[in-house]
Amino acid sequence: MNQFRTKARVEFADTDMAGIAHFAQFFVWMEIAEHEFLRSRGLSVFFEKDGQKYGIPRVSASCDYRKPLRYQDEFEIEVRLAKLGSSSLQYELTFEKGGEVHARGTLSACLCRLIDGGLRAEPLPGWFRIAIASQTAPEAPAS
Amino acid sequence: MNQFRTKARVEFADTDMAGIAHFAQFFVWMEIAEHEFLRSRGLSVFFEKDGQKYGIPRVSASCDYRKPLRYQDEFEIEVRLAKLGSSSLQYELTFEKGGEVHARGTLSACLCRLIDGGLRAEPLPGWFRIAIASQTAPEAPAS
Amino acid sequence: MNQFRTKARVEFADTDMAGIAHFAQFFVWMEIAEHEFLRSRGLSVFFEKDGQKYGIPRVSASCDYRKPLRYQDEFEIEVRLAKLGSSSLQYELTFEKGGEVHARGTLSACLCRLIDGGLRAEPLPGWFRIAIASQTAPEAPAS
Amino acid sequence: MNQFRTKARVEFADTDMAGIAHFAQFFVWMEIAEHEFLRSRGLSVFFEKDGQKYGIPRVSASCDYRKPLRYQDEFEIEVRLAKLGSSSLQYELTFEKGGEVHARGTLSACLCRLIDGGLRAEPLPGWFRIAIASQTAPEAPAS
Repeated sequence: MNQFRTKARVEFADTDMAGIAHFAQFFVWMEIAEHEFLRSRGLSVFFEKDGQKYGIPRVSASCDYRKPLRYQDEFEIEVRLAKLGSSSLQYELTFEKGGEVHARGTLSACLCRLIDGGLRAEPLPGWFRIAIASQTAPEAPAS
Repeated sequence: MNQFRTKARVEFADTDMAGIAHFAQFFVWMEIAEHEFLRSRGLSVFFEKDGQKYGIPRVSASCDYRKPLRYQDEFEIEVRLAKLGSSSLQYELTFEKGGEVHARGTLSACLCRLIDGGLRAEPLPGWFRIAIASQTAPEAPAS
Repeated sequence: MNQFRTKARVEFADTDMAGIAHFAQFFVWMEIAEHEFLRSRGLSVFFEKDGQKYGIPRVSASCDYRKPLRYQDEFEIEVRLAKLGSSSLQYELTFEKGGEVHARGTLSACLCRLIDGGLRAEPLPGWFRIAIASQTAPEAPAS
Repeated sequence: MNQFRTKARVEFADTDMAGIAHFAQFFVWMEIAEHEFLRSRGLSVFFEKDGQKYGIPRVSASCDYRKPLRYQDEFEIEVRLAKLGSSSLQYELTFEKGGEVHARGTLSACLCRLIDGGLRAEPLPGWFRIAIASQTAPEAPAS
């Protein structure tokens, strides 16, 4: 199973005047968890190959909020690669604290070549597919 | 029709190293537009009534990204109140620039009483329903 | 006098659990005000000239907080160009609400050429100096 | 010496279109490091005592930027408690990567009682002074 878990903590700047983590922050956390997942497989969301720049911009994102997270709460994010399309990646993410689900989200992204002033979808190369399917990084993470 | 339009601009801090507005920022913009919509009807997302504090925390949020927005881009957000439930509000939001749709989002929120360490759903009061259905603020906006 | 005033409002996402605008947000607002100041003179913080990319990264920033700003507060930011060095710009910024000063900040920045993986300070060109000293944009703002 | 070191990493959302960590983000990092420092001494930036709420809002903050930080850069923040006044705390913070200083900042904060619609400075209590001067948490951190 292509899953990954990471930990995070609610920082003061993440809270709002309702005393809870702001809803938009969950999307930042999803992306941080996705990037840790990619790094754990030796991949990066931004790379150069043959003089071309590539990125993996988001196509869609969603989040369902069940229970709030509060300042200093430590929680886990589970990243699950739900689907790998020809150039797209679909993730399901779960925010858990103390064994309880606080939020569930989805992210879908697409490999793109960054051309001046635009983005062009590209098929996911073979080496990317092999690396993302592996449980451990095939080589030192590209930092 | 219960619709509202507002304008915004991509600021430098909203961009990321891919040179486009960061995807999580669209959720902040959705909330800003929703709050302007509420203000235009004399409502606030955070109010006190009979010594109780009320808020309208998000239950779910989603966004589909079609075209990126870039630094200094000026765009419009259309807020449409798609459904008013017993205690919930569902919005559909459209990001447009130069007549083209750049992103579409949804927000659903729920009126809650803020009790120490928790949130409790409350039915939307009659005065709230009347105000949100009006095209203009029934009284001076609660600033 | 080389001064400029703009307006802003505290949005919900700008607040923290103490119920006030988060201190780091004042730096984002300073930058927004500085960029509006530059735009009002037909200038941009990011431009290309003769195939080179230029930016104006920050060298230092500071803020003194006198009174908090709260959700939905509308306030003014005054931008004053305090000093123009050979490649540097120094600003003094004041946050005012209802005639009272809520915060004072400084920003100092430096014109740099963006070279792959680095930044190189460049003297401010003559056209930049003329434009920034003018009260109104010498041409349509580069949007 | 009252010093503390912690690690952080530049996330994608922290970058801007110049390809470097946005300058306002350094203030968020300073606060995160300060709060970890306080937690390491069993203290929190937000607490209740005898039915009163206390916070430690910022009085001033500054940062000097020497070298940019980039996506995925791992760096250290050193927090040094430079001065403890009657109700104020002054910190000096250093951002280091690979043994090089990338930025230096200061934070000064003040213990305040949060009263409805306002903040009132309070002397730092004895137990706070003892705890902050200790190298390790005197009890389990208040999470």
